Amino acid sequence: MSRQPHHPTREQIELPMVLDCLSDPIRLAIVYILARRDLAAAELRCGDFNALSGKSNLAYHFARLRESGLMQTRIVGTARLMKLRREDLDARFPGLLDAVIAAAARDAERLRLVDSELAAAI
Amino acid sequence: MSRQPHHPTREQIELPMVLDCLSDPIRLAIVYILARRDLAAAELRCGDFNALSGKSNLAYHFARLRESGLMQTRIVGTARLMKLRREDLDARFPGLLDAVIAAAARDAERLRLVDSELAAAI
Repeated sequence: MSRQPHHPTREQIELPMVLDCLSDPIRLAIVYILARRDLAAAELRCGDFNALSGKSNLAYHFARLRESGLMQTRIVGTARLMKLRREDLDARFPGLLDAVIAAAARDAERLRLVDSELAAAI
Repeated sequence: MSRQPHHPTREQIELPMVLDCLSDPIRLAIVYILARRDLAAAELRCGDFNALSGKSNLAYHFARLRESGLMQTRIVGTARLMKLRREDLDARFPGLLDAVIAAAARDAERLRLVDSELAAAI
């Protein structure tokens, strides 16, 4: 079995860190896309987010999202499969993720969440 | 009439800026206290938050909260009266402020929102 990256436990997820994580437009876009995909319980790969930013910049944002407890990363072979930790987040902070996603959806154009390449990924 | 500080209009309130503002524990504590007081539509003065931090540090946080659209500041004589822009925030991002306040309340001890001096202010 391959080595899996560290994730905080549900109880270790901290509100200020989650809010700080979501305050960055690129990380917010990643969470927004993962949240839409989450309905189908699907995992996404790093490459699915290439429209958002450069590869190394994205790697940084993925790490921040994992360390804050927003995202779960699973390594399978050479691929990193990512999904939102919706159950953990909803348990820790009921309604928060939904409210942020709804707010992001309202401002989708302003936040450039509706870029054509991005829309294709969603 | 005294000169009033600048506030963004409702439409100018941006989600990333609001989330960034709330990600700081001191600013989150200020918003938490204002939200509790808001029920009575009361305004608070700078001095009501002295238990949270030093005066100049608080002045910085008050400015950040005003500039992000979270807080309204009204100057009356030598006093600064502050309240939460709940109506504007609820119109821009329905449910977001309530979810953040509820999350903060759940983690009140962890976030040190229940300090005795602070509790007295609330």
